[in-house]
Parts: sequence; structure tokens; C-alpha cells
Amino acid sequence: MQPADVTLETIRAARERIAGRTRRTPVLENATLNALAGAQLYFKCENFQDSGTFKARGATNAVFALSTAEIQAGVVTHSSGNHGAAVARAAGLRGVRAQIVMPENSSRAKFEAVYGYGGEVLRCEPTLAAREALAAQLVAETGATFIHPYDDPRVIAGQGTIALELLEDVPGLDLLLLPVGGGGLASGVAVAAKALRPAIRLIAVEPIGADDARRSFTSGTLSPSLQPVTIADGLRGALSARTLELIRRHVDDIVTVSDASIVRAMRTLWQQLKIIVEASSAVPYAAVQEQLLDIGGARVGIILTGGNVDLDQLPW
Amino acid sequence: MQPADVTLETIRAARERIAGRTRRTPVLENATLNALAGAQLYFKCENFQDSGTFKARGATNAVFALSTAEIQAGVVTHSSGNHGAAVARAAGLRGVRAQIVMPENSSRAKFEAVYGYGGEVLRCEPTLAAREALAAQLVAETGATFIHPYDDPRVIAGQGTIALELLEDVPGLDLLLLPVGGGGLASGVAVAAKALRPAIRLIAVEPIGADDARRSFTSGTLSPSLQPVTIADGLRGALSARTLELIRRHVDDIVTVSDASIVRAMRTLWQQLKIIVEASSAVPYAAVQEQLLDIGGARVGIILTGGNVDLDQLPW
Repeated sequence: MQPADVTLETIRAARERIAGRTRRTPVLENATLNALAGAQLYFKCENFQDSGTFKARGATNAVFALSTAEIQAGVVTHSSGNHGAAVARAAGLRGVRAQIVMPENSSRAKFEAVYGYGGEVLRCEPTLAAREALAAQLVAETGATFIHPYDDPRVIAGQGTIALELLEDVPGLDLLLLPVGGGGLASGVAVAAKALRPAIRLIAVEPIGADDARRSFTSGTLSPSLQPVTIADGLRGALSARTLELIRRHVDDIVTVSDASIVRAMRTLWQQLKIIVEASSAVPYAAVQEQLLDIGGARVGIILTGGNVDLDQLPW
Repeated sequence: MQPADVTLETIRAARERIAGRTRRTPVLENATLNALAGAQLYFKCENFQDSGTFKARGATNAVFALSTAEIQAGVVTHSSGNHGAAVARAAGLRGVRAQIVMPENSSRAKFEAVYGYGGEVLRCEPTLAAREALAAQLVAETGATFIHPYDDPRVIAGQGTIALELLEDVPGLDLLLLPVGGGGLASGVAVAAKALRPAIRLIAVEPIGADDARRSFTSGTLSPSLQPVTIADGLRGALSARTLELIRRHVDDIVTVSDASIVRAMRTLWQQLKIIVEASSAVPYAAVQEQLLDIGGARVGIILTGGNVDLDQLPW
């Protein structure tokens, strides 16, 4: 596939492919949060997704899009977090081997999630170079297929299925808020949402300590953060050329929020919605709570990306 | 109304009355918890109910069952917890005054919940005698109607609506697990469930440090705990003659669980279901997790009663 090869059609095909292998997640509304925001908020709850995050969508689409011949040697990825568990789960459903390269300093919970889905863990030094080198070596040695966490049109199309469901449940959305890290979710959702509803406004929200997407979006040139620092660990990744292109084409603006506001937002969501969302998930709502957006009276979709938290390490 | 005046018909009428004024809550399933239990578990999520607990059902039914003449002077209750907020909310919907007697040592969150719904708070010493005396005085002085937290057929019928919804969503339940404190929920749900599905087995679960229901159920005589001690603060109340009678008629057994097992269960539910439930809500699942019940292969309903927790005071 070519870089821009993510379309409404590939996203619809992804939806067919992952149906029955992932969940259709609910949309929650809350009167208190609506009153605070002066808007109608619709929370798409990917914290209830299989594997605990939306990553199950992209990983499942990628694994099941491969032919029997292509996948016979299994799949490889590198991940310190949720993508690894999602790939292990999808490979388990398909009955093939999953080799997950993980930094040796990953949390016990992350290792256990991969083991729990039957994945093989390969530990490496905690650098991107070490992860990429080991993954490339495994591909070369075993013939397995590499599944990138976000720089892959099949993964992006899988994440885009969120928008199909949300716009079915709430057809009249005026605005959709997306978290952005590596850009897989943001670009997939943006392609689908703008195709289905050209008038919708799309705003991506990013932690200020990992604001490569905002800078790259503004300049038009990939500008990765050298040392991203944010509590939103799912959003530390940097855009790829592919995701930057899709985001520049379809997303209207990118705003940033501080870690303090992310923690406040996470706590508000727990308290009011009675659901568990991880810090990365709270990033879009943080922009609402801090009143960074002009949303008065609007119907606003907010994607809550996942619920994998360490209950012994809460940030308050 | 007379003590036993809770029937499938009054529960159906309650459902009509509270429709649009409370939520129909979802039922969650989880593959991991099913595998651990060796059974099919169906969690009825009253943590998503308005006011944060199932108490909204009984309070709303009681408030809206009163005639305009009966309710013109408003309502009174005493509560250290969720019932007070639920009555304040229901009175606000009806546009009448709510006077909520609360022990002066209640948590700030409990006071704020009542204020948030427009209720008036009257503080008293933290004894049942003080609460009852002040509530009686308010009734005498203002002509307001007293709404007991559970010893009231309208409140019991309101709580029973949970069973109507759950058995619509999962008609083939073999077993239903209920938490029991004062017995409002347990007796209302038991009346409805046994009327709709006589073959269903009903087991109430109680904290061992507040086991008056188990002792009263066994002996047939009200045996309140003198000093209930349990983390499940919603279940410290003692059965009334009315709730004991209904529970002895319709519930098959009562088992007890320790506080340590309640905390373990609460944590498991947070981790796996990605939802916030309070300690009292985890009591029925604790009996499953501790393998106190013979449920192999069964379809088991579990009522999760509420989600009002202090996020700064988690029990782990």
C-alpha cells in the first residue's frame, strides 16, 4: 500500500474485518459535564475495547488483512505499551505467533498483558534504536511480518473505524476531539469523519511536553520531540510522514494541554463518568475543561482511547 | 401501605414512574472474569445510575408517587450517604423542598452531592437516634413527608425495577447475586425476580462485619448488629421487619464475605471492567472471586450498586 492509502473504503473494509473480533464500544453522556462545558459532549469509550484500548482495532485489522501465506511466520512489533498487547491478542485470535519487542523497563502489567494473550516477549534496552534493531532482526530471521504501531495503512484504517461507529450513534456532531501521539488514531478517524461529514470540525489535542504534532502540523515538516516528557505515555510517539500528511489534509487544528490539566481532566472523568481512563485518554477533555476551545452549544465527540492504568500509581 | 405491599405490579408501576427521570443502566460482560469464574457473569451497572447509585430509583419512585397535596411541604430524610443525594435529586426534579439530615462527620463529598442537587443539609450528631429525632422534628414542624432509606414500600418497589431491566436484557439468568444492607434493594429485586422467573436462585451477600441480615434470615428474628464494622459503608444498615419478611420469603440464601475480600473484588472490577464501583458494590462479586458459591457454568447476574468513591482514599 502507498502512504496515503487510507480511504473511507479501506476503513469500511476494516470494520467488516474486525467485527466480532473487537467490540462496538458505547457512547456515554453526562449532564454535569455538559453543564460545565456549555455543550453536548459524547464520549466514545474505547477504554471498554478488548485489550483495554482502541489499539485492538488497528492491530486486529492488520493481522486479519494478511494472507495465510503472509502470516504463516507470525507477526512482530515493538511496543512499550498497548499496541503490543493488542497485536498479541489479534495474533492469538488468528492462531499465529506474536513476537513483541519490549523495553526491559516496561511495567509488569504491560509484560503480563502480552503474556496473557499468548505473546512472546523479547526484552531490549529502552531506546527506540534498540527496539527497531531487534524487531528488524526478528523479521529477517523468522520471516514474520512487522506491524508498526501507527505508520501502517491497515493499522490506521482500523483506528478509523471508531469514527464510523461514533457518527452512526451521533450523526449530528459539530466537532470531534482527538488525542494525537504517533497519529494513527488521529489520521484514521480524520479520514473517516471528514468523508462521512465534511462539515465536521476536527481538533487534535496533544500534551505540551510531546508537541511534535502541533509543530509539524504548523511547519509542514516532521519535527519530532527529542525528549518527550508527559504523563500521557500513549502520546509520546512522533508523527510519521504518512500520518502528518493525513492529519494536515483532514484535521483543522491542533492544541496543546499541560500535564497538570491532563491529570485534572482524568480525575474529573473518573469522578463523573464512573469509568477508568488512562492519562492519555484524558487529553482531549483537558482542552474542554481548561476552556481552550470555542464549543458553546456544540455537539462534541470526544474519543477516550483506553483504560489501562496502574491502580497503585495514580497521579493524584 | 402495608408491610408486604410490594408486588410485581407496584414494581412495574415504579418503572413507569421513574422512566425518563432515571437511567436504564447497561449490563457489562467480561471474558476474563467469566474464565476466572467458570460461569457467565452479567454485571448490572448501577454505578452509572443518576446520582451515582441505584438509590435514585427508590427515591424517585417515592417522591413522584406522592400526590401534589402530600408533597407540597417537601420531603425529609436522614442519610449519611447515597440515599440523601438521591432524595435531593428527586425532589429537585419535582420542584419541592428536600431537607436532608446528615451526621456532622459525613464526608465533604456527601455534603456536596446533596447541595449539588439543591437539597438543604441539616447536621446532627453521628448517631442513629440523633438522626431520627431531628428528622421527626422536621416532619412535625414543616409537614414534610419522610422518605426512609429502605423501610418504605415505594422505595423498595423503585429498587426492584433493577430486576425488570436485568431480566429483559438477560432472560435466562440462573442465579442473581444481591448485596444486602438494610434490605431495600434485596427485597425489591427479590420480589420482581421471583415473580418473573420462579426458577431463579437468589443469593444475598453481606459483609461479615455487618451480618445482621444473615443472622436475622437464619433465626427469623430481627438481630441488628450493635456495632457494624465494614468498609462497605452502604451496607451497614440493619434489616427492618418489612425487608426481613420479604427477604425470607424470596431469597434462597445469604452468605458473608470479609472486608479483605471486598477490597480484592473491588480492585478486580476496576481493573477488568474499567469502571469505578464503590466498596459496597463489590460485595456480591467478592463471593464469586472467593469461590464461596457453586456457580459452575451458570448464568449469574451481579448488581453493582454504585460508584461514589473518594479517589483520595482508595483502600489499596
